[in-house]
Amino acid sequence: MSPSSPSPGTNQSWGGRFSEPTDAFVERFTASVDFDQRLALHDIQGSIAHATMLARVEVLTDEERDAIIEGLAEIRGEIEAGTFEWSVALEDVHMNIEARLTEKIGITGKKLHTGRSRNDQVATDIRLFLRDEIDKVSAELARLREGLITLADREADTIMPGFTHLQTAQPVTFGHHLLAWQEMIARDHERLLDCRRRVNVMPLGAAALAGTTYPIDRHVTAELLGFERPAENSLDAVSDRDFAIEFTAFSSILLMHLSRMSEELVLWTSAQFAFVDLPDRFCTGSSIMPQKKNPDVPELVRGKTGRVYGHLIGLLTLMKSQPLAYNKDNQEDKEPLFDTLDTVKGCLRAFADMVPAIEPRKTSMTEAARRGFSTATDLADYLVRKGVAFRDAHEIVGQSVAFGLREGKDLSEMTLEELRQFSATIEADVFDVLTLEGSVAARNHIGGTAPDQVRAAAQRARDALATLTDPV
Amino acid sequence: MSPSSPSPGTNQSWGGRFSEPTDAFVERFTASVDFDQRLALHDIQGSIAHATMLARVEVLTDEERDAIIEGLAEIRGEIEAGTFEWSVALEDVHMNIEARLTEKIGITGKKLHTGRSRNDQVATDIRLFLRDEIDKVSAELARLREGLITLADREADTIMPGFTHLQTAQPVTFGHHLLAWQEMIARDHERLLDCRRRVNVMPLGAAALAGTTYPIDRHVTAELLGFERPAENSLDAVSDRDFAIEFTAFSSILLMHLSRMSEELVLWTSAQFAFVDLPDRFCTGSSIMPQKKNPDVPELVRGKTGRVYGHLIGLLTLMKSQPLAYNKDNQEDKEPLFDTLDTVKGCLRAFADMVPAIEPRKTSMTEAARRGFSTATDLADYLVRKGVAFRDAHEIVGQSVAFGLREGKDLSEMTLEELRQFSATIEADVFDVLTLEGSVAARNHIGGTAPDQVRAAAQRARDALATLTDPV
Amino acid sequence: MSPSSPSPGTNQSWGGRFSEPTDAFVERFTASVDFDQRLALHDIQGSIAHATMLARVEVLTDEERDAIIEGLAEIRGEIEAGTFEWSVALEDVHMNIEARLTEKIGITGKKLHTGRSRNDQVATDIRLFLRDEIDKVSAELARLREGLITLADREADTIMPGFTHLQTAQPVTFGHHLLAWQEMIARDHERLLDCRRRVNVMPLGAAALAGTTYPIDRHVTAELLGFERPAENSLDAVSDRDFAIEFTAFSSILLMHLSRMSEELVLWTSAQFAFVDLPDRFCTGSSIMPQKKNPDVPELVRGKTGRVYGHLIGLLTLMKSQPLAYNKDNQEDKEPLFDTLDTVKGCLRAFADMVPAIEPRKTSMTEAARRGFSTATDLADYLVRKGVAFRDAHEIVGQSVAFGLREGKDLSEMTLEELRQFSATIEADVFDVLTLEGSVAARNHIGGTAPDQVRAAAQRARDALATLTDPV
Amino acid sequence: MSPSSPSPGTNQSWGGRFSEPTDAFVERFTASVDFDQRLALHDIQGSIAHATMLARVEVLTDEERDAIIEGLAEIRGEIEAGTFEWSVALEDVHMNIEARLTEKIGITGKKLHTGRSRNDQVATDIRLFLRDEIDKVSAELARLREGLITLADREADTIMPGFTHLQTAQPVTFGHHLLAWQEMIARDHERLLDCRRRVNVMPLGAAALAGTTYPIDRHVTAELLGFERPAENSLDAVSDRDFAIEFTAFSSILLMHLSRMSEELVLWTSAQFAFVDLPDRFCTGSSIMPQKKNPDVPELVRGKTGRVYGHLIGLLTLMKSQPLAYNKDNQEDKEPLFDTLDTVKGCLRAFADMVPAIEPRKTSMTEAARRGFSTATDLADYLVRKGVAFRDAHEIVGQSVAFGLREGKDLSEMTLEELRQFSATIEADVFDVLTLEGSVAARNHIGGTAPDQVRAAAQRARDALATLTDPV
Repeated sequence: MSPSSPSPGTNQSWGGRFSEPTDAFVERFTASVDFDQRLALHDIQGSIAHATMLARVEVLTDEERDAIIEGLAEIRGEIEAGTFEWSVALEDVHMNIEARLTEKIGITGKKLHTGRSRNDQVATDIRLFLRDEIDKVSAELARLREGLITLADREADTIMPGFTHLQTAQPVTFGHHLLAWQEMIARDHERLLDCRRRVNVMPLGAAALAGTTYPIDRHVTAELLGFERPAENSLDAVSDRDFAIEFTAFSSILLMHLSRMSEELVLWTSAQFAFVDLPDRFCTGSSIMPQKKNPDVPELVRGKTGRVYGHLIGLLTLMKSQPLAYNKDNQEDKEPLFDTLDTVKGCLRAFADMVPAIEPRKTSMTEAARRGFSTATDLADYLVRKGVAFRDAHEIVGQSVAFGLREGKDLSEMTLEELRQFSATIEADVFDVLTLEGSVAARNHIGGTAPDQVRAAAQRARDALATLTDPV
Repeated sequence: MSPSSPSPGTNQSWGGRFSEPTDAFVERFTASVDFDQRLALHDIQGSIAHATMLARVEVLTDEERDAIIEGLAEIRGEIEAGTFEWSVALEDVHMNIEARLTEKIGITGKKLHTGRSRNDQVATDIRLFLRDEIDKVSAELARLREGLITLADREADTIMPGFTHLQTAQPVTFGHHLLAWQEMIARDHERLLDCRRRVNVMPLGAAALAGTTYPIDRHVTAELLGFERPAENSLDAVSDRDFAIEFTAFSSILLMHLSRMSEELVLWTSAQFAFVDLPDRFCTGSSIMPQKKNPDVPELVRGKTGRVYGHLIGLLTLMKSQPLAYNKDNQEDKEPLFDTLDTVKGCLRAFADMVPAIEPRKTSMTEAARRGFSTATDLADYLVRKGVAFRDAHEIVGQSVAFGLREGKDLSEMTLEELRQFSATIEADVFDVLTLEGSVAARNHIGGTAPDQVRAAAQRARDALATLTDPV
Repeated sequence: MSPSSPSPGTNQSWGGRFSEPTDAFVERFTASVDFDQRLALHDIQGSIAHATMLARVEVLTDEERDAIIEGLAEIRGEIEAGTFEWSVALEDVHMNIEARLTEKIGITGKKLHTGRSRNDQVATDIRLFLRDEIDKVSAELARLREGLITLADREADTIMPGFTHLQTAQPVTFGHHLLAWQEMIARDHERLLDCRRRVNVMPLGAAALAGTTYPIDRHVTAELLGFERPAENSLDAVSDRDFAIEFTAFSSILLMHLSRMSEELVLWTSAQFAFVDLPDRFCTGSSIMPQKKNPDVPELVRGKTGRVYGHLIGLLTLMKSQPLAYNKDNQEDKEPLFDTLDTVKGCLRAFADMVPAIEPRKTSMTEAARRGFSTATDLADYLVRKGVAFRDAHEIVGQSVAFGLREGKDLSEMTLEELRQFSATIEADVFDVLTLEGSVAARNHIGGTAPDQVRAAAQRARDALATLTDPV
Repeated sequence: MSPSSPSPGTNQSWGGRFSEPTDAFVERFTASVDFDQRLALHDIQGSIAHATMLARVEVLTDEERDAIIEGLAEIRGEIEAGTFEWSVALEDVHMNIEARLTEKIGITGKKLHTGRSRNDQVATDIRLFLRDEIDKVSAELARLREGLITLADREADTIMPGFTHLQTAQPVTFGHHLLAWQEMIARDHERLLDCRRRVNVMPLGAAALAGTTYPIDRHVTAELLGFERPAENSLDAVSDRDFAIEFTAFSSILLMHLSRMSEELVLWTSAQFAFVDLPDRFCTGSSIMPQKKNPDVPELVRGKTGRVYGHLIGLLTLMKSQPLAYNKDNQEDKEPLFDTLDTVKGCLRAFADMVPAIEPRKTSMTEAARRGFSTATDLADYLVRKGVAFRDAHEIVGQSVAFGLREGKDLSEMTLEELRQFSATIEADVFDVLTLEGSVAARNHIGGTAPDQVRAAAQRARDALATLTDPV
């Protein structure tokens, strides 16, 4: 039997050993081309580098290399033009492209796979793809941070109530609150760049699992593809997906942060809070209630958090207890990663667009801060400065608040006499510390909510962002 | 301004209150029509029942009802034929269908939405859809169970090693092992039918959140749609998705079970175990290693477990801490549910097809059972029957095994003299209990591995399945 | 070597085959007695039934049985008195109790383990334990439901704003809202009782994995222990934990519901909403801010949601891909189950205690409902009743709302003339439908928010609860 | 009323405003002292630094500072000696220590809390604690890596079958396989150190949420406590827990890797594989089957994977959608973190102890590699070197394997004539490439399995580890 005679397996890449063709349903069930075609351009990028290296080490002639590269360039054109015909019978993106290459340039196309396997090929493709996507995510993170910093700087003097337990706690500035959001995102950004270093390592050359008998030069391929270095161990290179899990963990923490920001925007746009307005273009209405204007974008982002958490747990479960090296289970790594990327990019774009358009309703914010005894801590601190121990001052103010609740008066609305019921230490100068502006300005240290501190922090944040994004 | 003049919002369902059109990216980001069009036929089914009820209570005339039903029937035809044009600007499947209806039958189309809202409409659609899908899943579960029972019955006498800690434990029959699988799936099947009862409750009539001022009759609609009863509370009906989470929890447990079966098939088809063969049509090969025949189907099913776990955690996260009633977050309920359904149906089909084709390699199984001192417990039990306390018998056999390990002899290969080193209680009749057949046959009680018990258990399983699937 | 001479393994239950004692750290690392001692009383209950059955089938004499039962009763006393000394060297609760029994009654104690293994023993213990705990959880669920129904009935006329997207939607009654909570919990209760049926199946008799050679009668033991039936398959009985996962899935959905209720309580006790008060005894204060009164209970319950979700995913991960039968991994099933139970019972108790003490601030609720154009849908419905198509009515009202926003007037505050700008169909009778009471009363169908419907629904809920809890 | 008279709240830290004492169950339910006492020593460390700074900025006198530090030192002694009495009524570790301090040194003790809040205090404590724990985890990671490298170096020439899909793929060396494990752990180690940088930032000074009005110097405290810098934003500092989530994500990926290693050890110690032996001291036996020796340690580590995944999802869920700043939910951050740490440290210790004791069964490994056509790829590569295109060579070898399967012969067992049936290109020199040693040695490039490469890789790994651990 000659090798060119048709073998019973339908699939040209591994038919020889098989005595019956793949079941039609199994073929569809196990094929990945429907989703992994998204890796096509990075697959071609990897193949071109591989062919270049094979020629460098004289496994291919220069003519073979040129034919391959030219063929692949044509295929890239077909894919970009949308004219490439994907076949489920050819299983995956790799076999589809290779089959088309052989169709175009004949037997030389079959030589491209020399010294590699689909195992190292797909691991390389995913890393090339993810590295590019990380750079896009990084750019959106930078845009969102910039929007936050600019708005924070502008609103460094705007006073709102700060909450703990969703109960009025102390006055803060809106700019300070926005910078809290910026800090969260800044840490996410750092995590992303840490992850990128671990993504940027090259599996190619690991072949099926053990390396190859061809005299390949992995440093050449790594350099051509912009990888920092070749992976150190072939078994590990083809079988691990921890870099994808790490990216999904980064994404989960990011979405956790975005869900917190979303929650606050939903609260703040409610009639009860009325702290901010979102422009109509970021909201939608109701098919039945004509008065509704719903903060859809933050709600949807909040909702998408679960999706990303799910992908993280999906990937962790996928890899749990797998023996080395590659197992078919790993085919399931791509869809969660792709969907995580789409979700992250969509949510970041929505937020980066929306943040600069947030309109604070300052009167409403100030009014709310004035309620709820938000300067009670300032009164306690005042007493401490007059020599009362903190715990005793706390008790005195607690009793003043209980009085205020009964009488319907905030602290600043009480007379000096009323205040002095609880401590004779209180004097006329107490009213200075009970204003919102005084309260805020007094928290005047690094990290505090004083307007000057907020402006200084905004400047430091801007500098840190510049440092981070410049070298990428 | 007349109501027919174009309002600034692009979307006809809620434009009036808005002063600027939705941002183009936000429109795409918040639209659901790309995935919720999958509910189209159930949406039409619900709308027909709604229109019928509205006419029954004289909110619509019979002519209006007929026009609506006819229009919807045409639209169903267009969707089935693939000629329906979906528009992202119309947000979702509901508005797409309603807009097309109005295009077809004029102002009467706009009356269909009387007395309902998208909130109760979508909740109804999902339940109708899921109820149909559950019935498909149930049918595949029945097919898989039948395959397992049939194979178990056939292999009631086939002996293999039973394992604990993946160490040889005691001989069992292959039929008994297959019935263990069947029991798992049978419980999953029960869980599915319990879930179905809770799915089969009708939200329609809850309207946006509070019910409607029209004189609707929800019992009529429920009967027309085959629901067991209308939901008791409008706020709950539009806002909860626990039925979807329950389905995903069922699916996660099912996949957990399928992953266990898969793990065993992967082990059993390895060269090291070689307990079963899978036909070539359920396997695939390698692009680089010509000798490979990989058990792709069980590996892929094992891998898909994480996907479903992920959807479960995604939905649980989605619903966590949402205030009542409907929030936009809930739009995220559909994709995980759809993908869970596709995954469950695919995996069940693959297993129901594959199980009857599993070929036990009996010699190999028996050989393995003969190794590893698998009848050590039988020896201990023999001693107990001769009056030795169990814990002492255990110690005696433990020492015999230690001797066997040193000498390279299984228990049945030792001489009586060798055995009697450890206990003078051992006599010549010991060799009867050390055979595999004797060991297996002796576990002769309900739930035990004796061939007769396995055959009886298979019969009971067949009866239980018949009881379960008949009334559905 | 005689069996009574000390073998090198320190542990009397399996020393014979071993040539060196367990590593001290490994002994601690693998021991479970620190947490599984919680199963002690159920272990004794199972052992007593097992001994009784063994005597019934004449594997034990009546004297042996009595000695065992008496010894176990004494041990139970020691455990309840807190004088029992647990030993890590004895690994687990089972060996600790058996060793103590043998200490007490001599060699007969060693006979108790005849015809069973720790594998079926522990599976039986967990099921006995969980069944009892389920009954406690069920009682707390009933108590919470009762509290909700009573409060709902009392507050059937209290009006508050209903929300979608946290934007004012339509007026609802507070009683109606509370019944939405009750419906969620009622479904959880159903799920729990479905789960109980699957818990209440007896593994005992499965022995290590294959059944036993002793002439046991599993129907006897099942009856003695109140199990519905013996498990059908020994391999399945010792290796599956799906019942525990199902319980954790029930718990996750329950906590999801409690977290939604918690979120609303946190919102409603904020200064911004001020819809309800929680008594001081359910709240705590701040160490630094003297005015704070924090809704700790709902916050903490909301926070505990993640804990239970985590246990669910932990158990699902644990069981994924485990080959049959028992593996040591399964030891990890207990702690998540125990902690889930403690969390569920604690959260339910807190809620069942707190719900009856919720104090609605009616003026504040009504005031909020009056804002936000909450009767806009009523105006649209009014127009429809006058012959306007719903979609057109929606547009008319949308424009009225836009006008109201500009002018700072709610719909009920506009003059007839102002309203008629948008539709000449509007007449003087419009003001009847724009009141909160009219709006609420008009949603008068099963599931609607009308006070009469709420009272009727409360009655049906009370009846359903009685039906459910009576037979348990 | 004087501040020292008892207020109705039982708790001295916030009683003043409250009108009734906390409910007894609520007190227990919301108290954290049972688990957060684990932070006690770090709480004292933080308090000493805080007092030192307060004296530096003259908020405390030097005498007050000294009294506080002395008092805290005594309390540390009491805690270490186990004589400290913890009180649930005092809620948490912080109040317990402060109350004791005041008991000891009088009113000065109450001044310690000046300029801070429990919110920034607990956030600081957790970070101090976690930083220390990270250093312990790092040391165990280093010990495990060292064990792996040493064993790999020793076994650089030991041949075993490499698997993909658990089917024999190609021969690899055992040392190469061990280095794959080492690579996984090395990346985990890197992730841990990245995480440490983000842990090592100081919240202290954020006070309740907004900073404090006292003239604190946060750079001083940060320096005293060894923090890299003070946190930039007070709202963020007290409310975020992303550092704990990141640590749990690191732990999940680590456990994923350990579960993969465990899975292989369980397979390899099975009778079917028999590739390695684990010393008896790392194994346990069975209470019923006297022959059993179970690989408990790897099984248990595999089982603990779910636990850590669960904690990750628990923490992510906890933080989802929380509005700023601190909410009571956050109390739930500690137990998952503590349990993750205990689990990680236990599993690492078990592995670091066990790895050097793994005994390869070389004959068994080699024998397995000789089966299963493991050199089929070498034959294909041989053909390629003779000018056959790779895809054709693959087909030729596939047919040879099919022949071998029918005839029961491995490739190396066929005659030249038999091999030449499939390709006339095959000549007598083919037998050189079909040996295991030849196959392995031929994969001679960075990352390949050739013994020389393995030794070189071990050296590089040792160097990398030295670089990493030296500066910590």
